[in-house]
Amino acid sequence: MAGQKRNIRLLVEYDGTFYHGFQVQDDPSLPTIQGELEAAIKTICGETIRITGSGRTDAGAHALGQVVNFHTYSSVPIERFGVALNSVLPRDIRVKRAESVPLCFHARFDAIAKTYIYIVDYRPCASTFLRNYVYHVPQALDVAALRKAAELLVGTRDYASFQTSGSSARTSTRTVYDLRVEADDGMIKFIIRADGFLYNMVRNIVGTLLEVGKGKLMAEEMAAILAARDRSQAGPTAPAQGLYLVGVEY
Amino acid sequence: MAGQKRNIRLLVEYDGTFYHGFQVQDDPSLPTIQGELEAAIKTICGETIRITGSGRTDAGAHALGQVVNFHTYSSVPIERFGVALNSVLPRDIRVKRAESVPLCFHARFDAIAKTYIYIVDYRPCASTFLRNYVYHVPQALDVAALRKAAELLVGTRDYASFQTSGSSARTSTRTVYDLRVEADDGMIKFIIRADGFLYNMVRNIVGTLLEVGKGKLMAEEMAAILAARDRSQAGPTAPAQGLYLVGVEY
Repeated sequence: MAGQKRNIRLLVEYDGTFYHGFQVQDDPSLPTIQGELEAAIKTICGETIRITGSGRTDAGAHALGQVVNFHTYSSVPIERFGVALNSVLPRDIRVKRAESVPLCFHARFDAIAKTYIYIVDYRPCASTFLRNYVYHVPQALDVAALRKAAELLVGTRDYASFQTSGSSARTSTRTVYDLRVEADDGMIKFIIRADGFLYNMVRNIVGTLLEVGKGKLMAEEMAAILAARDRSQAGPTAPAQGLYLVGVEY
Repeated sequence: MAGQKRNIRLLVEYDGTFYHGFQVQDDPSLPTIQGELEAAIKTICGETIRITGSGRTDAGAHALGQVVNFHTYSSVPIERFGVALNSVLPRDIRVKRAESVPLCFHARFDAIAKTYIYIVDYRPCASTFLRNYVYHVPQALDVAALRKAAELLVGTRDYASFQTSGSSARTSTRTVYDLRVEADDGMIKFIIRADGFLYNMVRNIVGTLLEVGKGKLMAEEMAAILAARDRSQAGPTAPAQGLYLVGVEY
């Protein structure tokens, strides 16, 4: 067991439906992604360690490409790490890749950009198969207006109006590199890439853009909403189940 | 409550992941689709009734268009039935349509054809989001061979080699009208339409076709397998989670 100290980076996919979010909770009986990963690492490596994620994800939100890292002294060969962890992890959490990285690598501090996808289903009838994987909004949406509003949210801006209180971020300025709206066959995909995200920022942006799609807000009002730096000026928070952390760039 | 006797037909979609199949079990603590539908009808109509399904589906198998019927004396307007039942049903069972039909209609005896879809994912890495919705076979499959074998299973034949024992069917002859194999992007969809299906017939056909896809059986062997009328000559039973009852024709 006693090998050299190594820093392991995992690329993790998870279905967040049955979890109380990524981060371990004060009540250890609440299942979390972090808790499951740490328990699996304890089984495989024999070490009680704390992992570092690129950031939290909300209860019910998903990840296609969450990144975590941890230090270990175990001698498990790196090429066996993924298979070994998957053999003990629940089936709704999968390690897609495991690699050794320099000891200095930190999944949160070293992240330079993240991409999220949010999926809205606006067909009249909800599919039961998608109940935990999309936000069902059974009404006509003006996709052109919504796309115009989305364009106004791209850039380096103060996104305080899209930040749910309770966050400890030092500044609410972020750079949104890209906010694409893909509509097809009754489904809308919001694809948003930024250097960082405030608490609930994607869900608040999507909730606001949907108000534009419904005709309750005008696309042109986005500038005023941003300038207000006031959460109450923007739309509601879209629910967690439509949200996916797609990838983290380092 | 005391209205005229009516016969109600429901079109039902369900995610079978958490159910012990369609049919009520001897142990009433085991959740079933039928049990949930009957409980919902009791709540809405105030009647303890038994529903008739077009047929059973296995534990873990799904339906996009299961059809059931039941007789009721309740005076709930037909146009409110679907919404009312959905308001008390679990979210993984949805009534897509409710209609009044002649009293003689019987969901099982009057069915003249059914269509099932079976989905195989043969990409190297399984998606955790599909774990309950496809059969993951992480290896290269010869789709052309598999398609050739599928063609040999179409027609009016004795499908005894594809029937799991324990069924009470009088004859094992059925007519498979169509067995299409659609392959795209690492996924294979088997679409099979027949006048009726033996116990586990779709899952046994798919399990056998996959043996052809893997090169363990030759497409040409299908004729001999059919002729043998012997379950042990065909391939294994594919798991339930890839199976969907798509629709029933009357």
